[in-house]
Amino acid sequence: MIARRPSKPIRVGTVTIGGNSPIVVQSMTKTDTRNIPATIRQIKELTDCGCELVRLAIPDLEAANAISSIKQNVSIPIIADIHFDHRLALAALDAGANGLRLNPGNIRDPEQVTKVVRAAREREVPIRIGINAGSLPPAAKPYPSISAHMVEVALDQVRFLESLDFDLIKVSLKAFNVPMTIEAYRAIAKKIPYPLHLGITESGLPKAGIARSAVGIGILLYEGIGDTIRVSLSAHPCEEVNAAYEILKSLELRQHGPVLISCPSCGRAEVDIISLARSVDKNLRGISKPIKVAVMGCVVNGPGEAKDADIGIACGKGKGALFKKGKVISTLPEKELLDALMRELKSLCSSD
Amino acid sequence: MIARRPSKPIRVGTVTIGGNSPIVVQSMTKTDTRNIPATIRQIKELTDCGCELVRLAIPDLEAANAISSIKQNVSIPIIADIHFDHRLALAALDAGANGLRLNPGNIRDPEQVTKVVRAAREREVPIRIGINAGSLPPAAKPYPSISAHMVEVALDQVRFLESLDFDLIKVSLKAFNVPMTIEAYRAIAKKIPYPLHLGITESGLPKAGIARSAVGIGILLYEGIGDTIRVSLSAHPCEEVNAAYEILKSLELRQHGPVLISCPSCGRAEVDIISLARSVDKNLRGISKPIKVAVMGCVVNGPGEAKDADIGIACGKGKGALFKKGKVISTLPEKELLDALMRELKSLCSSD
Repeated sequence: MIARRPSKPIRVGTVTIGGNSPIVVQSMTKTDTRNIPATIRQIKELTDCGCELVRLAIPDLEAANAISSIKQNVSIPIIADIHFDHRLALAALDAGANGLRLNPGNIRDPEQVTKVVRAAREREVPIRIGINAGSLPPAAKPYPSISAHMVEVALDQVRFLESLDFDLIKVSLKAFNVPMTIEAYRAIAKKIPYPLHLGITESGLPKAGIARSAVGIGILLYEGIGDTIRVSLSAHPCEEVNAAYEILKSLELRQHGPVLISCPSCGRAEVDIISLARSVDKNLRGISKPIKVAVMGCVVNGPGEAKDADIGIACGKGKGALFKKGKVISTLPEKELLDALMRELKSLCSSD
Repeated sequence: MIARRPSKPIRVGTVTIGGNSPIVVQSMTKTDTRNIPATIRQIKELTDCGCELVRLAIPDLEAANAISSIKQNVSIPIIADIHFDHRLALAALDAGANGLRLNPGNIRDPEQVTKVVRAAREREVPIRIGINAGSLPPAAKPYPSISAHMVEVALDQVRFLESLDFDLIKVSLKAFNVPMTIEAYRAIAKKIPYPLHLGITESGLPKAGIARSAVGIGILLYEGIGDTIRVSLSAHPCEEVNAAYEILKSLELRQHGPVLISCPSCGRAEVDIISLARSVDKNLRGISKPIKVAVMGCVVNGPGEAKDADIGIACGKGKGALFKKGKVISTLPEKELLDALMRELKSLCSSD
C-alpha cells in the first residue's frame, strides 16, 4: 500500500537494510558495554522481543574490545556507536563490529574519518552518518533552518565518504522536534540513494515518548521514507522494540505477533473491559502468530465493529459472545469467556 | 507551520471546533451514565487533566435524563453518544446535551433522523455524524474499499442534514485500520466544509494504542486535517487526554504543561537516567507552564543535544550539570541535581 522510496540496500552483518527488505527494528543497549555479561544478557532480551540489530555505546577502548566477546554470545549484528574519538571506531572494527555509527558533529578531522572509512571498506562494514540536531558542527554559513543545516552536514559527509570510494552508507537526521525531523528526512530522501535510519531523539518516557516517536516516524514511514527505525525511550530497550513494532504494524509495514483490538469502554459496557483487555493481552504474550484478537464492550455492536479480528469476545450483562471474523460462534457466561477465547486461540495458532 | 484545512466553525456549548480554533481535545466517560455521582467525578478528573469536551454513552432514557443533573455539576460541554434509538437523542437534547453524536450505521430511518435534526436546530446543538468502519449500513452498491463506503455514508448523511437546513455538522470516520482511516478522512476533507473529529477506534491498551493512534491522528494532523481529536484507549480516560496532548504537542499544534526531553540512556551513562527521568516527570505534574525540561545522560553531549530545553540536567560520574538553554549554569554533586533543577523550575514558573 505504501510505496517505499527506493534505496540502495546495505548489509549489516546478516541483516539487509534498504531496497525491498522489511523495515528493520533496532535498539541500543543501556548497560555499561564493558560489563560483558550484562550486555550479553540485555542483547538476548532484545533478541527475544524481536530486535534485529543492536547498537552499543563505545565510550573507551575497553568497550570497543568487549565487542569481540559479546559478539560470540549473541545472534544479532552489533553496531558500534562512536563519538569524538576515531580510534574507538578502528578498535570496534578490529573487535568485529558489524556496523559503525559516526557523528560528524564530533568526529570532523578528514584524516581521521579517512582512516575509519578505509578500515570499514576493507571489512565491508557499513557506516551510519548519524546526525543529531543538538550536536551539529558549527555552521560554515547561515542556514534557513536547523533541518537545512542537518541535511547539509549529512550531504558533506556522504560526499566525503563517496570520494573515498565508500558507499556502504546509511544516514539519520534526528531531533526531538518532530516537524524539524520530518523536514530534514524529506530533504535528504530526495538527494541521496542510501537507506535512512529514522528516529526522534530523546523523546522521553514511555507514553509521551511513544506518542512523539509514533507521530514523527509514522509520518515519514507513511510517505515511504525509512529503512530502519529506532524508538528512543527512557525505558528498558525492549519497550523501544515493542513501540517500533506497534508503529510498523499500525501502517501494515510489518507483522509481529498478535494485534489486540480493544474498545475503550464507555457507559454502555456492563463488564470491566479494561481489566479484561489487560488479561487477554497478558495471555497473548508468547504467541508469535500475527493474529488479530478483539475485546469488545457490547454484544450488539462488538462483533460487527471488530469483524476485522480473527477472533474476539464481546461482553454483555453476565454473558458474552465468542466470535470469529464478526460471526458469533457461541454465547457463554461472562466468567467463561476468557478461557474459551484462549482455547480457540490455541487451536487457531496450532492449525498451521 | 502546519497549514490547517479551512473548516466552518461550530460551537459545542462554550467550545468552538473548526475555523482557526485550537484543535480541541475530547474524551468519553467510562462510568455508567446513570450513576450520576460517578459520572460527575470522572468528568471532573477529565476537566482537571485538560479535557475540553466530554461524550457520554446514552444507552437508555435514564442515561439521557441524567445529563441534566450531570451538566449542572461540571464545567465542560457534554455530548450525548446515541446509537439505535433516535428517541434517546431527543431526550438528551431535552436534558441539555450540548452536542449529539449519531451513528448513521444504526439510525437510518429518515423520519427519525428528521425529528432529531429539527430538535437540534431549534436548540442550535451540533450533530456529529459518527461513522465507524465496523458498523456501516449495508452497502447499496459495491464500493472499491471500506473507506470509500464510509465516505459515501457520511456524505449521504451530510446531504440529508443540509436538506433539512441544518449545518451544525461535524464528521468522523473511524477505523482500527490506520491506512483505511487516513484514506477516508483525506477523501471527506476535500468534499465538505465541516470540521472533522479524528480518532482511531478500539486502538487497544496504552502503549500499543498510543502508538497506533499517534500514527493515524498524527499523519492527518500534519496534513492539516482535523479540528478535534479523541484517542480511544482501554484505560482511564485521562490517559486518552494525556496521549491526545502529546500528539498535539509533538506537532506544535497545542501547548499543555511541561515537555520532558529525556535521553534513552546508553552504555555511556554513569547514572540511572531512567529513574531520574521518572522522578523529574513526577515533579513536573501540577506545573501548567509549557516549559521544556531535559534529563540527559552525559555532560559532554547533554547540554548541547538538549539546548532547545528551557532548563535541564546532564549527568556525569558522581556529578552533573544544571543548564539553561544549552549553557551550563552550575556543576553539582549528583544527589543535589534533582533538587537544584526543581528550585530553578519553580523560579522559572513564578517569573511571569
